[in-house]
Amino acid sequence: PEKMSEKACNITEFVGTGIGDAIGLVIANVDYQLHEKMNIDKKYRSIGILGARTGAGPEIMAIDEAVKATNTEVLSVELARDTKGGAGHGSLIIIGSEDVSDARRAIEVALETLNQTNGDVYSNEAGHLEFQYTARASFAIEKAFGAPVGKSFGLICAGPAAIGVVLADTAVKAANVEVVGYASPGNGGTAHSNEVILTITGDSGAVRQAVIAAREIGLKLLGSMGADPVSVTKPYI
Amino acid sequence: PEKMSEKACNITEFVGTGIGDAIGLVIANVDYQLHEKMNIDKKYRSIGILGARTGAGPEIMAIDEAVKATNTEVLSVELARDTKGGAGHGSLIIIGSEDVSDARRAIEVALETLNQTNGDVYSNEAGHLEFQYTARASFAIEKAFGAPVGKSFGLICAGPAAIGVVLADTAVKAANVEVVGYASPGNGGTAHSNEVILTITGDSGAVRQAVIAAREIGLKLLGSMGADPVSVTKPYI
Amino acid sequence: PEKMSEKACNITEFVGTGIGDAIGLVIANVDYQLHEKMNIDKKYRSIGILGARTGAGPEIMAIDEAVKATNTEVLSVELARDTKGGAGHGSLIIIGSEDVSDARRAIEVALETLNQTNGDVYSNEAGHLEFQYTARASFAIEKAFGAPVGKSFGLICAGPAAIGVVLADTAVKAANVEVVGYASPGNGGTAHSNEVILTITGDSGAVRQAVIAAREIGLKLLGSMGADPVSVTKPYI
Repeated sequence: PEKMSEKACNITEFVGTGIGDAIGLVIANVDYQLHEKMNIDKKYRSIGILGARTGAGPEIMAIDEAVKATNTEVLSVELARDTKGGAGHGSLIIIGSEDVSDARRAIEVALETLNQTNGDVYSNEAGHLEFQYTARASFAIEKAFGAPVGKSFGLICAGPAAIGVVLADTAVKAANVEVVGYASPGNGGTAHSNEVILTITGDSGAVRQAVIAAREIGLKLLGSMGADPVSVTKPYI
Repeated sequence: PEKMSEKACNITEFVGTGIGDAIGLVIANVDYQLHEKMNIDKKYRSIGILGARTGAGPEIMAIDEAVKATNTEVLSVELARDTKGGAGHGSLIIIGSEDVSDARRAIEVALETLNQTNGDVYSNEAGHLEFQYTARASFAIEKAFGAPVGKSFGLICAGPAAIGVVLADTAVKAANVEVVGYASPGNGGTAHSNEVILTITGDSGAVRQAVIAAREIGLKLLGSMGADPVSVTKPYI
Repeated sequence: PEKMSEKACNITEFVGTGIGDAIGLVIANVDYQLHEKMNIDKKYRSIGILGARTGAGPEIMAIDEAVKATNTEVLSVELARDTKGGAGHGSLIIIGSEDVSDARRAIEVALETLNQTNGDVYSNEAGHLEFQYTARASFAIEKAFGAPVGKSFGLICAGPAAIGVVLADTAVKAANVEVVGYASPGNGGTAHSNEVILTITGDSGAVRQAVIAAREIGLKLLGSMGADPVSVTKPYI
């Protein structure tokens, strides 16, 4: 909504809005009391903030690209049990920098990248699927998922969670990949969402192959519960 | 949606769909990496999966019947904070078997049983009520609620949670029953849902009487907040 | 919905309904088994119950006024991850009294007060904002937020949580106030909602000034994501 964003241009902290009810913000000099309550290292005078009602994976991937491209660091990644009545997560991601212009630039990059990282998010009336892939994970992926920096990374996610179990099995059988994590509604890895999330690492060709194999099955299984799932933007993997 | 289910018949893992955005799946040979991440005993080569966006109680009761009727075991019951914007839970239930045909049969039984176990789920625009009763609890009820196997079991649930407090009091006063558990939004027994869930055991006549007494009051209290609550399918208790 | 409330007048426990899908109830003599499971001190024979699908802050503030005006005590405040698909919380609040007439009067006061305490709750299609202020906090605020009794108290809240971070910074910079707490989706202070909640205390003029400064920025930032946010009832701060 371009027109809406113009309305808020007069707030210094405002950077922009994005797909999935996302908003990007910066604070040039975080108040010292808040600094402490947020557990942020004192050396980061400035912070960038990316939050969304609908989505966490796309935001983490977008910030991952942003921190590669700017002089910033990922300070925290928090998941909300949201998505406006959907089965998944909203998100709150904080990055730090010494200079606010760096934080602002990173948030700008992330907001622009959201169109791509929502490309392999598919949904219908019964649920959603999410797939992510990068040849080289950076610090947002490490912070959020514990995946190794510099290596290929893939994410396979589905809600209802039952579908995610089968996709996880499909992915690990499709190629020689290593499981980084397996999160399910009750196991602490998610904010009680109705998702199973598998994260994998390994050779980039294998990771991509595993993700694509899971996507193929996922579209059919979620499709069995309702309409054909459609991409939020445009598939990129 | 019969037509939809046909669409997915070509996926080996697909068993069927059910009421409450439920899906039933099987995996014949769980991948060894996933086996470990899911904390499943190695002796279960095959698993059955029942998941739903809207509902946990009906799914647990349905799996309880399924494990009575088949050579399977309940491995895990996880609750999601879901129901598509409702006050309650979605679910992810995993059962294990040595042979995939047993897991498949159990999931088929469970999907068929969902129509009955959704019979005393009532809802309106303000919230929902759920009541369950069985003369003989089996291993899904034990796993999910800690109730004794082989004894009568009753469940009384309402969202908003405030109504559930009164229903809990109504139930325990209506008959000589023993409280198995009392779960509320902040006490860890629920995935932060807006429900109070009371589980009871005892003489089967008393348990049934307690559940029916709570149901009568629940329909009036939830009705005070909106339209008359209606059963999702057809009352069975 | 007056007509609806009349429908339920014949249930002894029913007190009334309120804005935000709230319901008020009492139990004159809590069953001894339930008493124990709910961890309620034996000296409170009677309890009052205020629960809501949509809202926790307004309910806590309303109960705070109610316990000032009646001979009751706040026993528990629990948050649900609810709001009917919104970014925030539902609630379950239990108060205790020796005589049921006191509990009933308190719940009546609270239900009446909900119109005021929803006055600075604003929402649009992207999210919501909530602001609360009192010159003198009482025991519900202490129980829920750990704020000092008898002192001025302010609450600043926004969902998506990203906006709440900026509002928290705005508030503490606007006046000389002391931070009581800062809650965010993943830090345990919320039931995985998509909110940041800042609570403050201090001189009453300063607290009010901080809340008003945050409200001004909040309306613009949330407005950048959609329509102009509107009050649920009528602003009171």
